Amino acid sequence: MKNYKIIVSYDGTKYSGWQKQGNTDNTIQGKLENILSKMTGEKVEVFGSGRTDAGAHAKYQVANFKIDTDKNKKQILEYLNEYLPNDIAVNSIEQVDIRFHSRLNAKTKTYLYRINTTGIPNVFEKNFVFNTKANIDLEKMRQASKEFIGEHDFLPFCSNKKTKKSTVRKIYSISIIEENGEIKIYVKGNGFLYNMVRIIVGTLFEIGQGKRENNIQEIFEGKERVNAGITMPSCGLCLIDVEY
Amino acid sequence: MKNYKIIVSYDGTKYSGWQKQGNTDNTIQGKLENILSKMTGEKVEVFGSGRTDAGAHAKYQVANFKIDTDKNKKQILEYLNEYLPNDIAVNSIEQVDIRFHSRLNAKTKTYLYRINTTGIPNVFEKNFVFNTKANIDLEKMRQASKEFIGEHDFLPFCSNKKTKKSTVRKIYSISIIEENGEIKIYVKGNGFLYNMVRIIVGTLFEIGQGKRENNIQEIFEGKERVNAGITMPSCGLCLIDVEY
Repeated sequence: MKNYKIIVSYDGTKYSGWQKQGNTDNTIQGKLENILSKMTGEKVEVFGSGRTDAGAHAKYQVANFKIDTDKNKKQILEYLNEYLPNDIAVNSIEQVDIRFHSRLNAKTKTYLYRINTTGIPNVFEKNFVFNTKANIDLEKMRQASKEFIGEHDFLPFCSNKKTKKSTVRKIYSISIIEENGEIKIYVKGNGFLYNMVRIIVGTLFEIGQGKRENNIQEIFEGKERVNAGITMPSCGLCLIDVEY
Repeated sequence: MKNYKIIVSYDGTKYSGWQKQGNTDNTIQGKLENILSKMTGEKVEVFGSGRTDAGAHAKYQVANFKIDTDKNKKQILEYLNEYLPNDIAVNSIEQVDIRFHSRLNAKTKTYLYRINTTGIPNVFEKNFVFNTKANIDLEKMRQASKEFIGEHDFLPFCSNKKTKKSTVRKIYSISIIEENGEIKIYVKGNGFLYNMVRIIVGTLFEIGQGKRENNIQEIFEGKERVNAGITMPSCGLCLIDVEY
């Protein structure tokens, strides 16, 4: 039995997210498991570094799986890319320690959220950006983004109301960059709750438009989802790095 | 009556090409004409700098149309982008001399053909590149590409057998660049016949694989389509510049 770590990219537009759900296989995890199970003749479980939302993308998702096979790693990579649909690709594969686990060992994750403010749709990246005609004050967004840095209870920035697990997470950095009318928001943290990045960005987006004061501290203190901003559409969201 | 010049981008994947055909409006020209006719209440004709093939793309297609309207150019631009599908966008608009004609006045056009040779599908650009596992000798392609430069009768590099018009065209340059396993072939000329770029690239692609000697001069002399290489798939082709 060998443990393999893979780097996966996907255009998540057509999928119900990374994680398998009930009897639909319209997930990235489901697609990978089906192909590996077919390849080995045994049920294979694929562990991702974390879920990504329905419609969200990954340039760099990390996953691992344990299999018995005569194929070498180059052959496994080719087999996967041969049978995966053209919106999912495995970029690389390496054999890792049998104890390596993509999610449990992950130290940081970085997400990118893209907002096109030019008023001109980007036809070549239409699935990967959120379009808006809003006027946005980047300095207001940058100022407010500092309030998220550090360890906080992110319960008000989570869509899952029923969670019993800890909702404390640590944000290491939020960088907001503008290039040719596109705003890129990079969020790096030790982990993220359900919809957390999209709600953080939605709150900053409202602040940038002047629809909301910088009331991040109050939102943390109130501990209520209703106080935070909108959940941004998933199309603009992409997982771009996982560190171990 | 004012004459407007627009720069149009499109992901051509779902379209039957630039040019209107019979009673289908599944063309870029058809979409633009329908919206402008609705806007002005009169039948509007849109002239493109040239046809692009079914499934081929444009980052920079130039078109012009003559209309009477109270709207200013910014309002026309916004109206078009409001009603165009999200795989077609108008990037800019300017009023030009009433005699300006996008096709007749065009001096050069530049196309880009993209070939991904990494063996790993590019999931974010799957509609815009041709994927191959072939081993390609770039130097062989570059050597052979020189034979196309200058004025030639490109009849053997044209899919339309019935043309009665001149098939003489001038190629100014062909640049072949490799970046991270992607081969980019830039072809600049004073005009192109039906499928001409795709057949030129197909011939160079066969030469690069060692499937064909550099027999470009013989192909020109033979004047037969059958002597030239394959027509590359349209997905990899994009019109990127038009000069006046």
